[in-house]
Amino acid sequence: MNNYYGTKMWALIEELSRLPGIGQKTAGRLAFHIISMPLEKVEQLAKTIVEAKQNISYCRKCTTITDDTMCPICQDDRREKNMIMVVEDSRDMAVYERTGEFKGLYHILHGAISPMMGVGPNDIKIKELLLRLQTEDVTEIIIATNPNIEGEATAMYISKLIKPLGIKTTRIAHGVPVGSDLEYVDEVTLSRALQGRLEI
Amino acid sequence: MNNYYGTKMWALIEELSRLPGIGQKTAGRLAFHIISMPLEKVEQLAKTIVEAKQNISYCRKCTTITDDTMCPICQDDRREKNMIMVVEDSRDMAVYERTGEFKGLYHILHGAISPMMGVGPNDIKIKELLLRLQTEDVTEIIIATNPNIEGEATAMYISKLIKPLGIKTTRIAHGVPVGSDLEYVDEVTLSRALQGRLEI
Repeated sequence: MNNYYGTKMWALIEELSRLPGIGQKTAGRLAFHIISMPLEKVEQLAKTIVEAKQNISYCRKCTTITDDTMCPICQDDRREKNMIMVVEDSRDMAVYERTGEFKGLYHILHGAISPMMGVGPNDIKIKELLLRLQTEDVTEIIIATNPNIEGEATAMYISKLIKPLGIKTTRIAHGVPVGSDLEYVDEVTLSRALQGRLEI
Repeated sequence: MNNYYGTKMWALIEELSRLPGIGQKTAGRLAFHIISMPLEKVEQLAKTIVEAKQNISYCRKCTTITDDTMCPICQDDRREKNMIMVVEDSRDMAVYERTGEFKGLYHILHGAISPMMGVGPNDIKIKELLLRLQTEDVTEIIIATNPNIEGEATAMYISKLIKPLGIKTTRIAHGVPVGSDLEYVDEVTLSRALQGRLEI
């Protein structure tokens, strides 16, 4: 595509289109929106971006992204401290928090084991989880990594490390999503739903 | 949604979700991507955003967004100077340039007449178009505003101003999009396609 908009505008479209899920067209739309904003709003946006990066820190207990040394959930006395849900990233924690169903603590791995992508067990926060188990009184570890190859491999790896410690290790259920149509559910999910059937 | 990520991260998600077409979820994904980028890349992104805004200027002839006082197309001697295609914004110009079919000049209105949104004829660059017609030797004005209520109203308004000047005024054809399926084309488009039929 030729540069009809001038180099600065073009540079902005290029930068934006490098973000995940943003193609050339969306980047163009965003860039046009940005230049139509008042200058102080644009400067505010730029400042917020840099500040978020500069101020990023991690909870020293569950490793989630937070401003403080410990996240609000780890600091909360009302949480059940004997249950830890292991998730791949902070967004997954937020997703489960929104259900309001889980009252225990979390542990964020910041990734999943993926030999294809060169991510080994030492590249994610598994060691930090094992350290927690030495000092915290945990009776159950719920592994809620994603239901894909990397997530399953990570779940298997962690469960093998934890079982010898005598701590109950569970995996969130795989099955048919609520509200879906059986016709559109894939075979692997259907067979996992059958295996995981519960008495009613 | 509670703020699990800390205030700076939350501020970033909020800012990003104000951009057009970016919802809470996409904003979250973008924010997590941004904080995973190296600091210098993040600072570069912020700088590019502000610079694009600060350096924005408009071609003094066709009013398109450009760095220079005149855009590359208006400066290009090979363009046919007697034809002007009127479009709503600079992106529409880029879209037509990509077809490679149009060799004339453009005029960017920067909007369309919309009484609903409080945009009148004086809020878009119609006056600038009329001024061009006094100094440039134009034989045809092609109105390529969007095929919606605002675009049609703008096309009607402009054609009424230009016809008395004795300049040929045309509108891009409405019809069935190439590669589409007649079954899925709406009735208004179908009847416009019938009205605009050409001999083969």
